Amino acid sequence: MKVLLIGGCGFIGSHVADRLLADGLQVRVYDRRPELFRTPLPGVEYVMGDLADTAQIYEAMSGVDAIIHLVSTTVPSTSNLDPEADITGNLVATVRLLEMMRAAGVRKMIYLSSGGTVYGIPRTDPVAETHPLQPISSYGIVKVAIENYLHMEHHLHGLQHVVLRASNPYGPRQGHTGIQGIIGTHLWRIAKGEQVEVWGDGSIVRDFIHVRDLADLCLAALNSDASGCYNAGYGEGASVNDVVRGIDRTVQATGGAPVVPIYKPGRSFDVPRVVLDITRARTDLGWSPKITLDEGIAESWDWVREQIGNHTH
Amino acid sequence: MKVLLIGGCGFIGSHVADRLLADGLQVRVYDRRPELFRTPLPGVEYVMGDLADTAQIYEAMSGVDAIIHLVSTTVPSTSNLDPEADITGNLVATVRLLEMMRAAGVRKMIYLSSGGTVYGIPRTDPVAETHPLQPISSYGIVKVAIENYLHMEHHLHGLQHVVLRASNPYGPRQGHTGIQGIIGTHLWRIAKGEQVEVWGDGSIVRDFIHVRDLADLCLAALNSDASGCYNAGYGEGASVNDVVRGIDRTVQATGGAPVVPIYKPGRSFDVPRVVLDITRARTDLGWSPKITLDEGIAESWDWVREQIGNHTH
Repeated sequence: MKVLLIGGCGFIGSHVADRLLADGLQVRVYDRRPELFRTPLPGVEYVMGDLADTAQIYEAMSGVDAIIHLVSTTVPSTSNLDPEADITGNLVATVRLLEMMRAAGVRKMIYLSSGGTVYGIPRTDPVAETHPLQPISSYGIVKVAIENYLHMEHHLHGLQHVVLRASNPYGPRQGHTGIQGIIGTHLWRIAKGEQVEVWGDGSIVRDFIHVRDLADLCLAALNSDASGCYNAGYGEGASVNDVVRGIDRTVQATGGAPVVPIYKPGRSFDVPRVVLDITRARTDLGWSPKITLDEGIAESWDWVREQIGNHTH
Repeated sequence: MKVLLIGGCGFIGSHVADRLLADGLQVRVYDRRPELFRTPLPGVEYVMGDLADTAQIYEAMSGVDAIIHLVSTTVPSTSNLDPEADITGNLVATVRLLEMMRAAGVRKMIYLSSGGTVYGIPRTDPVAETHPLQPISSYGIVKVAIENYLHMEHHLHGLQHVVLRASNPYGPRQGHTGIQGIIGTHLWRIAKGEQVEVWGDGSIVRDFIHVRDLADLCLAALNSDASGCYNAGYGEGASVNDVVRGIDRTVQATGGAPVVPIYKPGRSFDVPRVVLDITRARTDLGWSPKITLDEGIAESWDWVREQIGNHTH
C-alpha cells in the first residue's frame, strides 16, 4: 500500500511515518518544510507544498491508495482570533482535497480531528463518540465541519474514512513553541533553565496520549475496513498538576532541580476536564495504548536533554 | 425595539416584516433586492446590499437592538455542487457578521437554520433538538457550523441567540423557481397550465409549516430571553403524495382540472422522512402553529391565482 502523509514532517506525522515504514508501507510525505529534528528518512518520498496548493497536492496524490491528513493551520488557543483564516485554511482546503481525491480515485482517508475540542464542555466522564458535538472554539467548530464533509463523502460517494479524535499527544519531537502541548513546553523550558508556567490552578484534567500510541492507531485505521469516528486517547485523565509532579520526579531523578511552576490566570476556552472513552477504537480497530504517562515523560525528557546537548556541543 | 431583518424582502422575510410591524416594532430591512410581489412597506427602512458587503451591513446595524438573519446564498439541492461557495457565502459571511455585531454592541440574534438538513437521516420520529447532527449535504453542514459559531459567541461573549431549525415553510409569496419548496412550485405550475412533477414515488414525508406560523415564532423568539436551538415545524408529517392530493382537492374545489403528477427519479440527498418535535418551542417560547396544511394550501392557491390574474389583466 502507498500512503500520502499530509503533514508528515510534523511532530505527529514524523512518528506516523516511522510506523508506516516499519510496517513495510510505501510513504510519500507532503509538508511545508522538512522535519525540525531529523534529516530526511531513507525510503520516504518528500513533496514540499502547502495544504492550499491544489495543483501540487493533486500531483502528490497520484498513485496512492490512501491519504492520512494530519495538518491544521491553526491551534485551539488562537483559532478564535481569526476564525475566517481557520475556515479558509482548514475547512475549504480539506473540502477541495476531498474533491481532488474523488477525481483521482483515492478512496480512503484517515483524518486527525480533535477529541479535546469537538465535544465542547463534556457532560459525561469519560466522553464517548456519541457525546453531542458542541465546540466552543473555532478550531473545534472547523474540525466538526470537516468531519461532516468526510461523512457526506462517505455517504454519497463511498469514501472510506476514519476520523481520529485525538486527545493530547506528547512525546519525543514535540516542539517548544508553547502551542503544541504542555508536556513538551514544560520539558523544553526546564532544559533551558526557565520556569514552568501553568494557566489557572493546574486542576484541569486532560487525556495525554503518547505519540507512538497515536501512530499505532493511525496504522490500525489504515489496515481496517472501518469507517467512522474514533476517540484517540489514553483513556485516563491526568491533571496539569499531575503532569508537573510527574515531570518533577523525572527531572529530579536525573539530577535536576525541583520543578516549581508559576501560576497564571486561567483561559476562557479551557474546559475543566476531558477524558476520552476509547472503547470503540479498542473494539473495532483492535488497538490499545501501551505507554504510561510516567514512561512517556521520562522518554520525552531524555529526548529533550539530548537535543539541548546536540545544540550546545 | 429596532430590528435589522437580513433577508427581509424574501419569502419568509416579508412575512416576518409584516409580523414585526403588526407588533409595533421598528424594522430595517437589509436585502439584495426589493420584494418580488409587493411594493415597499410603509414605515420600513430599506437598505439594499449583499450579505458579503461588510461595510454596508455594519452601517445597517447601527442603532438596532437585534438582528434576524434569514439569508442563505445556497439551497440544499445544489449546495453540494460547490461547497466552497456555500462555505464562503454563508459561513464566512455570518462569522464576519457576528464579529461586527460584537463591535457594534448588538447582542441578540435570531438565526434561521434548517430542521430538514442538520439532523441528516433521522433516527427518531419525530426529531427533537437533541438528535445527533449528521448532515449529508453541504447546506446542512454549513448550517451546523454557523449554529456552532453562534453558541460560541453566546458562551464566550454573551450573545443572546435563538436558532430556529425550520422545516418546510410554505404559503403566499413563495416563489415559483422550483427551489423554494414543493407547494409553491406545484401551485404555480398548475396556475400556468403545466404538469406537476414529483421526485421519487411521492412517499417521502416532510413537516410543512405555514410561513405566518414561522413568522410568529420569530417574534416569540425576539420577545424571549431564551438562548438556544428550537425546531420550527408544524410537528406533523405529510407525504409528497398527501400534498398533491391536498392541492388536487383545493384546485378542483375552485373549478380546476384534476392534478395528475409526473413521477421522476428520486434524488440521493432526499431523506425519507423528517418530522420535527416542536415541544421545546411550545414550552420555552409559548408558541404553537395554528394554520393547518389544508387551510394553508387553499390560501396559497388563492394567492397564486391572484398573481396570475394580476399579470394577465
